[in-house]
Amino acid sequence: MRRSQRMAVLIQRLVEQPGRVFTLSEFAREFGAGKSSISEDLALAREVFAEDDLGRIETYPGATGGVSYLPVRSAERLAKSTGALAALLSAPDRILPGGFVFMTDVLFAPSWAQAIGEAFATTFAGAGAEYVVTVETKGIPIALMTARALGRPMVLLRRDSRVTEGSSVSINYVSGSSQRIQTMSLPRRALPQGARALIVDDFMKGGGTARGMVDLLGEFGARVVGIGVVVATAEPANKRVDGYTALLRLEAVDEEARRISLRPLTERPSW
Amino acid sequence: MRRSQRMAVLIQRLVEQPGRVFTLSEFAREFGAGKSSISEDLALAREVFAEDDLGRIETYPGATGGVSYLPVRSAERLAKSTGALAALLSAPDRILPGGFVFMTDVLFAPSWAQAIGEAFATTFAGAGAEYVVTVETKGIPIALMTARALGRPMVLLRRDSRVTEGSSVSINYVSGSSQRIQTMSLPRRALPQGARALIVDDFMKGGGTARGMVDLLGEFGARVVGIGVVVATAEPANKRVDGYTALLRLEAVDEEARRISLRPLTERPSW
Repeated sequence: MRRSQRMAVLIQRLVEQPGRVFTLSEFAREFGAGKSSISEDLALAREVFAEDDLGRIETYPGATGGVSYLPVRSAERLAKSTGALAALLSAPDRILPGGFVFMTDVLFAPSWAQAIGEAFATTFAGAGAEYVVTVETKGIPIALMTARALGRPMVLLRRDSRVTEGSSVSINYVSGSSQRIQTMSLPRRALPQGARALIVDDFMKGGGTARGMVDLLGEFGARVVGIGVVVATAEPANKRVDGYTALLRLEAVDEEARRISLRPLTERPSW
Repeated sequence: MRRSQRMAVLIQRLVEQPGRVFTLSEFAREFGAGKSSISEDLALAREVFAEDDLGRIETYPGATGGVSYLPVRSAERLAKSTGALAALLSAPDRILPGGFVFMTDVLFAPSWAQAIGEAFATTFAGAGAEYVVTVETKGIPIALMTARALGRPMVLLRRDSRVTEGSSVSINYVSGSSQRIQTMSLPRRALPQGARALIVDDFMKGGGTARGMVDLLGEFGARVVGIGVVVATAEPANKRVDGYTALLRLEAVDEEARRISLRPLTERPSW
């Protein structure tokens, strides 16, 4: 195998499974090469990834050490991709009766879900999340991609409890938009006690659903280390949760003038 | 930039976005290199990817040509990963009251969802699917990862219709397991008329839900080019859909003896 071929395989393995820690011995065995050669390859890749803003190749020293790939990007690239997302979602033909904005096609496009997941992974890289949590339905693809980028499992809160999930904990909460009491549940076996959880969702208006998620996670003794949403409405300014990060702020939807005012947030509230 | 660094960036770009076609000119411009050098790099990578069963690097000739990465694997590797999945899901502590098997943690683990998505992408690589379709909720992560592996969008059928989605088409169907009439809907703007659709779901018993999906897609003039499920029950042998591919067959769940009989399918019914 040529050196550039070894590099091709190394990068395929790392990029295919973000967040997974590979040991150098594992690679050395696989390639029949010395650990020092593998280290050199990784140093060259790390250098060019940093230059081209392609994510971080992290190496961990020591006997239990290894290497992993984290698809986190620079603030500039994040601003560029949230800007592109704002432009895409502001198209007038996305306005639905009632002043809603059609976002489903974007949330369910794997490449956009992945870009959003990487934006959240970048924002919350230092939060030490052990689980990425969302509530059904539309937030699932972005939560899965956030979990993938962080190399963590995803946990899904359900709107009802199912026989196929075993015993569950349920809570009631008031949805901010409809002011109706709703139910949210989580199977006992889906989350260990005392875990560090990152909440991800597609949309926030009053924050009632996010509040419900925080409360249900509280029943599991979880520590919420961050809340990330794709779009938060400007009004009401006071949400039912204290700290959250939105990629985009929805200022107004003018059905008459066919105009959506959606802008990328530059200042990010820190949790 | 050294040659092995150019290779590192090339592979990062390709593996990060499966199914996306990049032009050689795009890469040549980015690297300030000749197209012939890029072609050589790609040939070396293609060779070693084929040897190591890491997926296909496809090149398309001509002026509109380019290159893309498809994470499809060999039949041997597919058998190995479905075998590992069967072993994982057969653990006795997964048995829930009523003879159900707890699968949610596996379906929602990004690495497993990705492995399952790549298994479906491998199985249906030649089917020419333009969209990957599932119904909420538990099939969403595997459908998203199948769509990602094929470089296609995902479309989600809902159990109800939402104001935030615009006008929808709904159908009623009989769920095989509960024998109850249920509703399934799809926003008009989510799928163009006459599309080629691949259906993906986590579980099939009677096939009623899959039948409903086929019927609803029929309302959009769609052509169903394949149905893939992770687990299909052995009984009833006659499902309500004709052709489907299951990765695993659930023979029996013995609550008394705490035993799950789940085996990988070696013969795949062809659609």
